[in-house]
Amino acid sequence: MEYGDAVTVLRRMPLFSSLDPGQLKLLAFTCDYLSFEDGEALFHAGDPADSAYVIDEGEAVIRADTDNGEVTVGTLGKHEMFGELAIFRNASRIATIRARGQLKVLRIAGDIFLKLVTQNPDAALGVMRALSDKIARAQDSFEAMEAELRRLQAAAGGVADGADK
Amino acid sequence: MEYGDAVTVLRRMPLFSSLDPGQLKLLAFTCDYLSFEDGEALFHAGDPADSAYVIDEGEAVIRADTDNGEVTVGTLGKHEMFGELAIFRNASRIATIRARGQLKVLRIAGDIFLKLVTQNPDAALGVMRALSDKIARAQDSFEAMEAELRRLQAAAGGVADGADK
Repeated sequence: MEYGDAVTVLRRMPLFSSLDPGQLKLLAFTCDYLSFEDGEALFHAGDPADSAYVIDEGEAVIRADTDNGEVTVGTLGKHEMFGELAIFRNASRIATIRARGQLKVLRIAGDIFLKLVTQNPDAALGVMRALSDKIARAQDSFEAMEAELRRLQAAAGGVADGADK
Repeated sequence: MEYGDAVTVLRRMPLFSSLDPGQLKLLAFTCDYLSFEDGEALFHAGDPADSAYVIDEGEAVIRADTDNGEVTVGTLGKHEMFGELAIFRNASRIATIRARGQLKVLRIAGDIFLKLVTQNPDAALGVMRALSDKIARAQDSFEAMEAELRRLQAAAGGVADGADK
């Protein structure tokens, strides 16, 4: 991708639309535009982290490592960011991200990303809103899972009661 | 609480320690210092939201509404913020918050909170880090719950297989 194209792609992203031209140019100059094929992993849970990502085109799935292997815990679409948690927390990746179909992303160096989103109030609010939406979605998943867990526990209890008689 | 005490309390909070004296005074002037008794609700899931909170002393529990009533999904301790999600998302409360033992909090008007944490890079990073930690904790809960769900499903499957024979 040409440098000018990167500026255009970045400007279209709600998260970065409020950056001033100088900040956009810094971002365009330092980020990478990458393509991934269906199923390909961008990073794995446990990996060290040095960058955040924003989706330009396509979808990605968030996969958690469990005793039964990877499980999909969410999806990400156009203009959504991911990989930012490890940057903010200065920690390793907590989940694996894979392309669903063809995926095109911007990879942004962690230190540049941190600087831009904390120094620009609109971008800061955009990041806070995106993080808050992720928590709200996690809460929804929790409530659905909790209901399923109760249902199975009740069913297991019912069977045990029957066996005791 | 006296105005000067509020400044002192705020300055001790990591989230606000980087605010300049003018910002701290604005915050102290506009926030409320409140006490709650064990079990008392600060707000309920579904309530409209106009403020964020930071704990000065004590603990709070995060309670989700389920078909089986309220379930504790997390706890909050000294200097942790809550209620900020609804402010960032401009939405109603997604969970109920209750005091565990005696709880002392600062309640900050949503618009003032938004302004201070987006305009101060250190406070912005503090908020982003706190939100990211909440997502990481949700992921841990998800993985624990997923394991329990699989165990129950396998147990239920085992019974069903037995019944089929």
